[in-house]
Amino acid sequence: MRSVRLHSYNQSPSIDLVPEPEISHPFDVLVRIGGAGLCRTDIHIVEGQWREKSGVALPYTLGHENAGWVAAVGSAVEHFSVGDPVIVHPLATCGFCLACRAGNDMHCMSSAFPGIDSDGGFAEVLRTNARALVKLEGGLSPADVAALADAGLTAYHAVRKASPLLPPGSSAVVIGAGGLGHIAIQVLAAVTEAEIIVVDRSEAALDMASSFGAHYQVLADGSEVASVMDLTGGKGVQVVLDFVAEGGAERRGPAMLQRAGSYFVVGYGGTVELATIDIISSELNVVGNLVGSYTDLVELMALAARGSVKLHTAKYPLDAFAQAFEDLQAGRVRGRAILVP
Amino acid sequence: MRSVRLHSYNQSPSIDLVPEPEISHPFDVLVRIGGAGLCRTDIHIVEGQWREKSGVALPYTLGHENAGWVAAVGSAVEHFSVGDPVIVHPLATCGFCLACRAGNDMHCMSSAFPGIDSDGGFAEVLRTNARALVKLEGGLSPADVAALADAGLTAYHAVRKASPLLPPGSSAVVIGAGGLGHIAIQVLAAVTEAEIIVVDRSEAALDMASSFGAHYQVLADGSEVASVMDLTGGKGVQVVLDFVAEGGAERRGPAMLQRAGSYFVVGYGGTVELATIDIISSELNVVGNLVGSYTDLVELMALAARGSVKLHTAKYPLDAFAQAFEDLQAGRVRGRAILVP
Amino acid sequence: MRSVRLHSYNQSPSIDLVPEPEISHPFDVLVRIGGAGLCRTDIHIVEGQWREKSGVALPYTLGHENAGWVAAVGSAVEHFSVGDPVIVHPLATCGFCLACRAGNDMHCMSSAFPGIDSDGGFAEVLRTNARALVKLEGGLSPADVAALADAGLTAYHAVRKASPLLPPGSSAVVIGAGGLGHIAIQVLAAVTEAEIIVVDRSEAALDMASSFGAHYQVLADGSEVASVMDLTGGKGVQVVLDFVAEGGAERRGPAMLQRAGSYFVVGYGGTVELATIDIISSELNVVGNLVGSYTDLVELMALAARGSVKLHTAKYPLDAFAQAFEDLQAGRVRGRAILVP
Amino acid sequence: MRSVRLHSYNQSPSIDLVPEPEISHPFDVLVRIGGAGLCRTDIHIVEGQWREKSGVALPYTLGHENAGWVAAVGSAVEHFSVGDPVIVHPLATCGFCLACRAGNDMHCMSSAFPGIDSDGGFAEVLRTNARALVKLEGGLSPADVAALADAGLTAYHAVRKASPLLPPGSSAVVIGAGGLGHIAIQVLAAVTEAEIIVVDRSEAALDMASSFGAHYQVLADGSEVASVMDLTGGKGVQVVLDFVAEGGAERRGPAMLQRAGSYFVVGYGGTVELATIDIISSELNVVGNLVGSYTDLVELMALAARGSVKLHTAKYPLDAFAQAFEDLQAGRVRGRAILVP
Repeated sequence: MRSVRLHSYNQSPSIDLVPEPEISHPFDVLVRIGGAGLCRTDIHIVEGQWREKSGVALPYTLGHENAGWVAAVGSAVEHFSVGDPVIVHPLATCGFCLACRAGNDMHCMSSAFPGIDSDGGFAEVLRTNARALVKLEGGLSPADVAALADAGLTAYHAVRKASPLLPPGSSAVVIGAGGLGHIAIQVLAAVTEAEIIVVDRSEAALDMASSFGAHYQVLADGSEVASVMDLTGGKGVQVVLDFVAEGGAERRGPAMLQRAGSYFVVGYGGTVELATIDIISSELNVVGNLVGSYTDLVELMALAARGSVKLHTAKYPLDAFAQAFEDLQAGRVRGRAILVP
Repeated sequence: MRSVRLHSYNQSPSIDLVPEPEISHPFDVLVRIGGAGLCRTDIHIVEGQWREKSGVALPYTLGHENAGWVAAVGSAVEHFSVGDPVIVHPLATCGFCLACRAGNDMHCMSSAFPGIDSDGGFAEVLRTNARALVKLEGGLSPADVAALADAGLTAYHAVRKASPLLPPGSSAVVIGAGGLGHIAIQVLAAVTEAEIIVVDRSEAALDMASSFGAHYQVLADGSEVASVMDLTGGKGVQVVLDFVAEGGAERRGPAMLQRAGSYFVVGYGGTVELATIDIISSELNVVGNLVGSYTDLVELMALAARGSVKLHTAKYPLDAFAQAFEDLQAGRVRGRAILVP
Repeated sequence: MRSVRLHSYNQSPSIDLVPEPEISHPFDVLVRIGGAGLCRTDIHIVEGQWREKSGVALPYTLGHENAGWVAAVGSAVEHFSVGDPVIVHPLATCGFCLACRAGNDMHCMSSAFPGIDSDGGFAEVLRTNARALVKLEGGLSPADVAALADAGLTAYHAVRKASPLLPPGSSAVVIGAGGLGHIAIQVLAAVTEAEIIVVDRSEAALDMASSFGAHYQVLADGSEVASVMDLTGGKGVQVVLDFVAEGGAERRGPAMLQRAGSYFVVGYGGTVELATIDIISSELNVVGNLVGSYTDLVELMALAARGSVKLHTAKYPLDAFAQAFEDLQAGRVRGRAILVP
Repeated sequence: MRSVRLHSYNQSPSIDLVPEPEISHPFDVLVRIGGAGLCRTDIHIVEGQWREKSGVALPYTLGHENAGWVAAVGSAVEHFSVGDPVIVHPLATCGFCLACRAGNDMHCMSSAFPGIDSDGGFAEVLRTNARALVKLEGGLSPADVAALADAGLTAYHAVRKASPLLPPGSSAVVIGAGGLGHIAIQVLAAVTEAEIIVVDRSEAALDMASSFGAHYQVLADGSEVASVMDLTGGKGVQVVLDFVAEGGAERRGPAMLQRAGSYFVVGYGGTVELATIDIISSELNVVGNLVGSYTDLVELMALAARGSVKLHTAKYPLDAFAQAFEDLQAGRVRGRAILVP
């Protein structure tokens, strides 16, 4: 089959002909890819930023946002049949450790992460395990939802954790209205009645955010803390969801909080620096967020099926990977680039 | 009446004869002081560190950890009678703002803090309001519990917030086995079944911590992160409660956490610096803690009444304030210094 | 002033001229009534059903769903000024007991309930205390929101308690699409993404429920359990909110639950009978619901201000009380009858 | 191997020689039994009370409270090795359904229950799956903890759910100080600081309850509601845990609650009958409880390892099953009967 494989860091991946993966474990499944999202993490992988963390041996197949149809199942798989349309949770987890038992799939003690530490979904067929599959219902098409498998899941997970802090009458700031942020805004609008304030450097992104449900737009021009304070009568907000978390956002985000407020870190790159006197005197919280659980993905699919979360996608044939990659690097992709084999 | 009053910063407070306070509001109460805790914050006040934050006009009466007997009540007070033994919540709150409504007294939008921003309890009589009083039951004596009003309350509040994260089989680190820490250890032992690991620079403090219920002692000699990792099979703990939060504790505390762990900041002085990549990749939480609620104080009194929390105190007559202050500065006080008028 | 007063049970209340109430406690407030909701409880009061529970001495003024403008404040009231538009929480609470401290106003140990156990709001002026007032914002008019003070609050409280059990992909049944039920449906649609199944005996009520956000209508014709099972693929729902709880609804409601489901009782009249073997083998919950907290009312007003909850009202002048009462008894009121002095 | 098998209802099980079970699924495990608890459910099974619910085909091997050592593992089992000492969660769950994903093993959509619906542990070797095993640590011996696998787990699960409702200063009633109740008392004493009131018909059971940590004993002589009210100053308790739930306990239990209290049903046999007016006017909760989760069992083993939960056991060789059964029926077993092959 064709697959997009990275042979060495800082060089363009190539499209290779390789054998299809095979079932090797009773809970393995093969998924015929219907769509695989391309994201900035793929750029970082090619640049070598994940070399040590993933420890993956080159060459290998990229692609960690996958959806398609079940193509084969291991001997012990009972919950899926060949042909089932599925979206693929990014982690193939063990189901035995206490993290898996508690539904915290992202903290599984022995998981695989196809597309990061093993062969991924920029290919005709992907191998993962049966615990990673969520059956698509309500007529959802793999290529339309693939980007929800990772970007959407991460945004959903953070908003879901924040939602108990956001009763009617409260306010939330979303920093960064890009790939994850525009999903977060839709989820906030769906599962809370909070006032949603979006902060971004781009006027175009702010305009789009409004169409997704944001109530107030704040241009990130250095005065964003003051703007948020103005919008909230000087009090600040209950929750800041930071999808940027670098370049100063990580300093300004916590400054937008009211007493007992919570700063949710989703993006990365910068460093949070907070004097302990400020942490205690306002009783602030800093909350890390990592991908999401299997149940988060099931719930996100329910939102997608009823039209509460929509994705903007630009589809490319698998063979056009180089073009898609170049468009992404050049900032020419509107929404999310999806490779369709 | 006699009272210990600060006339100018960096000079010793003096014992003055002043008129007793009077009821001026329907919910005011006067409390005849049975005991008032002296703490390091009082040293910081004399040094002027609170000058701007409190905005208090000099001279004024110190003392923010108070207990005694109701001496007079305002016209609208129904829940207390003259002679009732009481411990005094440090904040005199409004009862109307949403923070008060939710039981978050420490976030009241219009509270007073006697001893910090108005006349306190190093005196024969203190004025506060009826919302601050907790009736003492089970034979508790004001002088014996006074230090629970602030130090104890703060420790209790933090442990109580942490306790849902500490099921049987989990582990908690307490950094700093001093005034707050030794209460925190007792509360942890009472309301959780977590393994309690205490970290302190002093062997004597570690020994005392064992007698209060700590299961493991770790000397803070620079290798404490490694020691905690060893004690937890390399995994780290679910919760770190940091009563120091300066001098490097604020760096080492978060390093002791396992994935999805929580670092509770109670002490202050240092700065928390965490790369956002580390916050998200382990999905860590940083949790600020500030004093405690009225309900926290009620619960803490229940623990004290059944003997689950005990204080070591050194009692001084009010007239011996100078001696008590000097002993505290010199580190000669074992446990908590209490002024008894 | 004019007021609608009950002189003896089972006789029509009369419109009397009585002196205006006066401030007698530092936290008292007088409210010039802008609108007061008439509800079935008023019929029950006239019929004597509340005689023993309320212990009220006749004659007294009815009206427990009130909104208007502050007309006078007691000497200690700081948070409100004459002229402020307000909605009135049904209970005048003490602010001192542990229930008040925890925000559970409905369990206050020493509250008054104007319109039930003391003079209410079918009058030009009502006396309550300052803790009961919520300032109206966003241009809300007292007469338009009055019925949210009790009926709306009760519906909101129950849905708010249920909402953590209703993630995307879950389903909730609302039994009874009347005064409370039609608000509950709107709140469910606002704060959850659950599928909403409404059950009612009236086709007209079911039609109206759809316009308020219900996704499925089930006619209560005896086959409603089977219908709910069909709609949920035989599994049943996570939550049943029963606003009827008599006439068989209280038997059929629990039968609509899936394993670990929760039956929320809001209406009353019948008796819940469940074999303990059925409670444990499916691990079911039965959850009582009573009015709502002050914070619930604040949040409900936030929903009303942004248009997420709307009331159908029929307004009557205060002098037309007899007509309104008769219309209500005859089932001729569409939505909620509001008396406007 | 020898096994205790039921050939027909209402006849004594016999000890048969049967082939050892074999691994037939990649996640199967065989456990060499170190101890298997005999309980009243076994009597009910022999009497035919479970005939329809379990649908099991006779003959089959009894025994649903099992512990021992891993004897063999399926091809896909990675987390256990032959010889590991283990306690066996009563349910062999799928790990794929949403209940399993959320850690609610007792609501797994496709589980087996060895000893109830398939061959159990009154034998030399038991077959279950790897998801059911908890490794024993801290020197715990299978025969000593076997009865915690079901009776202990059920008690732990209920107390764990109740514990957030039981802050210091609160009170809990335990109805029934028998097999489950005496474990519940120990868990309450370990993980809460609530006052524990035990209610039982037997003076001897009440005495034993004191030694396990109960603070007050109430004889169930018909006046137990009044006694509980006296002990709580007329208010009632926050939580009632009912391990009897028949013979009138299910009427008196809810009557012991304070406002907003919760009645936890664990035993079964009777019928809960509550007027909806009483449910709502006091805002009561009825909470079903069923076995417990895998994580519950892990936590319970942590309590057992540190000596916070102890079992009284009477050990019998497997061949003495008839004697053990007779002793249990005659009420001659002190604590829990354990069969040791």
